[in-house]
Amino acid sequence: MVRAILAEGLVAHVGIIDAQGLPVVIPMAYALDGDGLLIHGSVASRLMRTPGPICVTVTLLDGLVVARSLFNSSMNYRSVVVVGVPEVLRDEERERALLVLSNFLLPGRVGNARPPSRPEVRQTAVWRLSLDGATAKIRTGPPKEDPADDYDLPHWGGVVPIHTLFGSPEPDGAGVAMPAPDHLQRRR
Amino acid sequence: MVRAILAEGLVAHVGIIDAQGLPVVIPMAYALDGDGLLIHGSVASRLMRTPGPICVTVTLLDGLVVARSLFNSSMNYRSVVVVGVPEVLRDEERERALLVLSNFLLPGRVGNARPPSRPEVRQTAVWRLSLDGATAKIRTGPPKEDPADDYDLPHWGGVVPIHTLFGSPEPDGAGVAMPAPDHLQRRR
Repeated sequence: MVRAILAEGLVAHVGIIDAQGLPVVIPMAYALDGDGLLIHGSVASRLMRTPGPICVTVTLLDGLVVARSLFNSSMNYRSVVVVGVPEVLRDEERERALLVLSNFLLPGRVGNARPPSRPEVRQTAVWRLSLDGATAKIRTGPPKEDPADDYDLPHWGGVVPIHTLFGSPEPDGAGVAMPAPDHLQRRR
Repeated sequence: MVRAILAEGLVAHVGIIDAQGLPVVIPMAYALDGDGLLIHGSVASRLMRTPGPICVTVTLLDGLVVARSLFNSSMNYRSVVVVGVPEVLRDEERERALLVLSNFLLPGRVGNARPPSRPEVRQTAVWRLSLDGATAKIRTGPPKEDPADDYDLPHWGGVVPIHTLFGSPEPDGAGVAMPAPDHLQRRR
């Protein structure tokens, strides 16, 4: 279940403790990589300087749960929380990880774009966090009215589903004119 | 800009430091409330027990930026990070805040559902965090190729937009049969 949720997510929220001892939560691209997940950032970024304990959370919002009482209204979601101390990847491991990150959101990207040069690889910090410290949390289904006689109230109960969709690829109009490649169309 | 992003968001990722001194990031419903934002949870939850410094991050993912190089590929997004120590709301303030929270994702909910009873209010911890500690970060537009001669590569460049949509309300089939109310239809 952890892996299925991570495979469907688009963005991770990464929590660290900053130099002042305060919590900081930053949205980041990530990729599922076997029994771990990858995140990356500029080597110059404050976040990626020193890998201490981090928390990576990925949330898929599936719907708004509309109960007959405000108290029992809720959200349907699937989320994964992964805690641990990441490993800093270097050399060939880092190069491989960067390709996995590129291919995660848009499978087929590797082979349809210029791969990173050596200096570009060196500008990018890549961390790998084991899924050993992962937990999944899920809410699905209709509202649960409590007390049960709330079902008799003259109010509507059910779910408003939420969907995330990819639109048509929008070319930037620069460079060599060509149709959007298949791997982008497939993502829809 | 901070307020516009928060007004459009659906879920917040809340970072705290737990009793062991480790960062924890939890997805939570939130609401914009004047010059602050509200979050709520069970009074029994570990997260809501003691309000220390927190970080609340809301991210809207707008698209995947497909550059001709993997290195300059990116995401279009709008995000807000709010840091600070929240105020714990009590009594009338808490009751008012719970209605603001209910009405935020589905305007019109208050008046179309049973309001919280006194015991329900007492079971809910509500925190308010000032937007004084808020910063917005945004990326928009097409890829920026660097070096510029990457534009000559035989690869496609542009953006794959991402949309979040509300589906048709799905009744739970229990209780009093009635059509989905207007405020749910309007959310689409």
